[in-house]
Amino acid sequence: MLEQLKEEVFQANLDLPKYGLVKYTWGNASAIDRESGLFVIKPSGVDYETMKASDMVVVDLNGNVVEGELRPSSDTATHAVLYRYYQEIGGIVHTHSTWATIWAQAGLDVPAMGTTHADTFYGSIPCARYLTQEEIDRGYEVETGKLIIETFEERGLDILAVPGILLHGHGPFTWGKDAKSAVMNSVVLDEVSKMNLFTRELNHFAKELPQNILDKHYLRKHGKYAYYGQK
Amino acid sequence: MLEQLKEEVFQANLDLPKYGLVKYTWGNASAIDRESGLFVIKPSGVDYETMKASDMVVVDLNGNVVEGELRPSSDTATHAVLYRYYQEIGGIVHTHSTWATIWAQAGLDVPAMGTTHADTFYGSIPCARYLTQEEIDRGYEVETGKLIIETFEERGLDILAVPGILLHGHGPFTWGKDAKSAVMNSVVLDEVSKMNLFTRELNHFAKELPQNILDKHYLRKHGKYAYYGQK
Amino acid sequence: MLEQLKEEVFQANLDLPKYGLVKYTWGNASAIDRESGLFVIKPSGVDYETMKASDMVVVDLNGNVVEGELRPSSDTATHAVLYRYYQEIGGIVHTHSTWATIWAQAGLDVPAMGTTHADTFYGSIPCARYLTQEEIDRGYEVETGKLIIETFEERGLDILAVPGILLHGHGPFTWGKDAKSAVMNSVVLDEVSKMNLFTRELNHFAKELPQNILDKHYLRKHGKYAYYGQK
Amino acid sequence: MLEQLKEEVFQANLDLPKYGLVKYTWGNASAIDRESGLFVIKPSGVDYETMKASDMVVVDLNGNVVEGELRPSSDTATHAVLYRYYQEIGGIVHTHSTWATIWAQAGLDVPAMGTTHADTFYGSIPCARYLTQEEIDRGYEVETGKLIIETFEERGLDILAVPGILLHGHGPFTWGKDAKSAVMNSVVLDEVSKMNLFTRELNHFAKELPQNILDKHYLRKHGKYAYYGQK
Repeated sequence: MLEQLKEEVFQANLDLPKYGLVKYTWGNASAIDRESGLFVIKPSGVDYETMKASDMVVVDLNGNVVEGELRPSSDTATHAVLYRYYQEIGGIVHTHSTWATIWAQAGLDVPAMGTTHADTFYGSIPCARYLTQEEIDRGYEVETGKLIIETFEERGLDILAVPGILLHGHGPFTWGKDAKSAVMNSVVLDEVSKMNLFTRELNHFAKELPQNILDKHYLRKHGKYAYYGQK
Repeated sequence: MLEQLKEEVFQANLDLPKYGLVKYTWGNASAIDRESGLFVIKPSGVDYETMKASDMVVVDLNGNVVEGELRPSSDTATHAVLYRYYQEIGGIVHTHSTWATIWAQAGLDVPAMGTTHADTFYGSIPCARYLTQEEIDRGYEVETGKLIIETFEERGLDILAVPGILLHGHGPFTWGKDAKSAVMNSVVLDEVSKMNLFTRELNHFAKELPQNILDKHYLRKHGKYAYYGQK
Repeated sequence: MLEQLKEEVFQANLDLPKYGLVKYTWGNASAIDRESGLFVIKPSGVDYETMKASDMVVVDLNGNVVEGELRPSSDTATHAVLYRYYQEIGGIVHTHSTWATIWAQAGLDVPAMGTTHADTFYGSIPCARYLTQEEIDRGYEVETGKLIIETFEERGLDILAVPGILLHGHGPFTWGKDAKSAVMNSVVLDEVSKMNLFTRELNHFAKELPQNILDKHYLRKHGKYAYYGQK
Repeated sequence: MLEQLKEEVFQANLDLPKYGLVKYTWGNASAIDRESGLFVIKPSGVDYETMKASDMVVVDLNGNVVEGELRPSSDTATHAVLYRYYQEIGGIVHTHSTWATIWAQAGLDVPAMGTTHADTFYGSIPCARYLTQEEIDRGYEVETGKLIIETFEERGLDILAVPGILLHGHGPFTWGKDAKSAVMNSVVLDEVSKMNLFTRELNHFAKELPQNILDKHYLRKHGKYAYYGQK
């Protein structure tokens, strides 16, 4: 069942430690098959060194296991909420990658200070507020997903133009058209988090990238006038 | 004698350089067999590249060598004190890992600023005071063990809920139910030490994680209501 | 066609991730054959793990593809402008390497604070201004090349004595007598960017290297009185 | 000639990039045979990836080549001065390792802030002044060696108790009883340079290690009461 997707999700999960985003089992990647409405996600707390593609768990959009011996990631409900709300998302990644988590712990949006950022994220990457006690009681993981939606709605952000978010005191979620691009967006987010922190340390008066260069770089790679890559 | 435990302790010691916690021979891991009251520890100053499982030294709870050709770690007496006092500890690790040592040199507790911390440590990780001249004269390694106990007693901390400590001007000790989990706790301690340092640099007003989120994350992974992992 | 040069450019591109300067496809290296007036450059957005020497694209000095199945790097026009203007340049590299990009985002020249810098760069490495809207409209990549020339002309710098530049909000370009030396200059630039940032953090009053030591180190490796290396 | 020593020096030079102290050819290690009064040193500017043990150059105490096809390191004269003056030194290493060089660029001694430092260096690691113009004219490399001696004499330091120094604006030299221990001292110096920088950033009021703990740790590993390791 969804063997091809399992392989993709498995590879995406292996890419997390490969790119230095994850130690031990502190992360998870998933991807959805829109036709069947089912998504595939990493099992919870399984060692990356022994994990196999066939360990990936198939889940429906309510977070119920459809196939698999193992329990899915404890963050499965957050993934499900996002897949239900945003039809354009094909893959989701959650990590505690060092530099993005530092911004999450600081409770700050990551501003667009360079073209490395602008090539992938069209503007600041938001940091969502803490969950309230009421929300935690209602269901931590589902409410985390709803908070991501709330944050994007309130700020009027396009989910694919800004393919990631920080959760205050926790860490990043990123997404994309598939699991692979969600991983890449996590790599970019961590790298710009690192670069922006030290840019500020080097020059407290450093400003965000001017809007026209942000536009130029984002649109060089995205949309109908893009001219980067082979298509 | 205790061949299985020797293998586990050997692997735990190899994991220290693998996770970037140790250079050369600057660290040691041990684990105890509660039935016999004997523990297994790394030999002192032996190169990680040539060390074998059979080089591990078997020691009793007074720190006397029971089996082994080599001298045990110079920190053996500290391990012995902790194993004697805390029945619930199965493995102990000592390193000079970069970021935890930086907090130890700064003489500061590591505050819980994020869920990466809360997933493993239930609150601040204490930094113990320097040893006094009298304690150094009495026996540096034994007194280090006693100081760890004193610090936990004075603060009323649960030894497994906060499975690690910093020694002022020195570095971290961590522990767990076995050698493998003691290593993992060292990895977590070093990572949160790094993240918290830069969180403060990025935002001097960054606060500790709210108590309710600390509770939620710790209890998601620990205790009878835990729902992380496969059991 | 230019098979030897393709191989050199291919290797130079592989060296970018090897030296930690590039993640994914965020960089490009090229080299020119002065006899034919053609240069070889990495294709745009091709995965480093599957890229082959035969994927390199041959381009003329107007940036038109002369041979190759793939589209050349989106930065090809910048390379072309530099090769046209500076006959002494044989290879060019562009990256978003972490520490050089941090200085570029901060909008600051990298001062010569040590002999690691002086061994390769004879004085400060300039940071060029942002492009204006008019320049962006006229052609982002061509104008980037022109801005590099403008910056060197205005400051009266020798293109080989200071073989690199930062573009404000973007990242570094470096060059050299061939692709390999352009890569090395990128490595040096990133390393001195890192060291200088932390030198300033450690000592806000740290000064630039005295002129006589800058001279000594630069001339030990460059020019007719050089006595470093095997020739 | 001195084949065993060549092998040791070759291995020591390979260890420099392995421990992250050196990129390209930015470093050199040597070791002396006291019986013949000859020392073996890395050739100048030879790629670490193609270098062989037989490429090592044999030099006398005046820095003249006795055997070898290649030119010795450009820093050979500095090594010679130190070997001549200090009979107790068996190996010398020079690098531009990142964190030690940062302290050198900042022009600051590295204070003993923790036991990682005290295990190897008995007190602060000095930073020598810049060379004067007169000294540069007289001979940069010879005068660098003399400046190291001057600095140790003026401060009344024991060359083996503090087996390293920083040169202002340049980088570190370390030494030891042989090439291998000189490399290890470079590793320690770079690591404590990193830890001390961030200790200060974390706590501007962090103090040096108390003298009694410095004594305890240094003497645990050195001198006749040492009880670390296997002898």
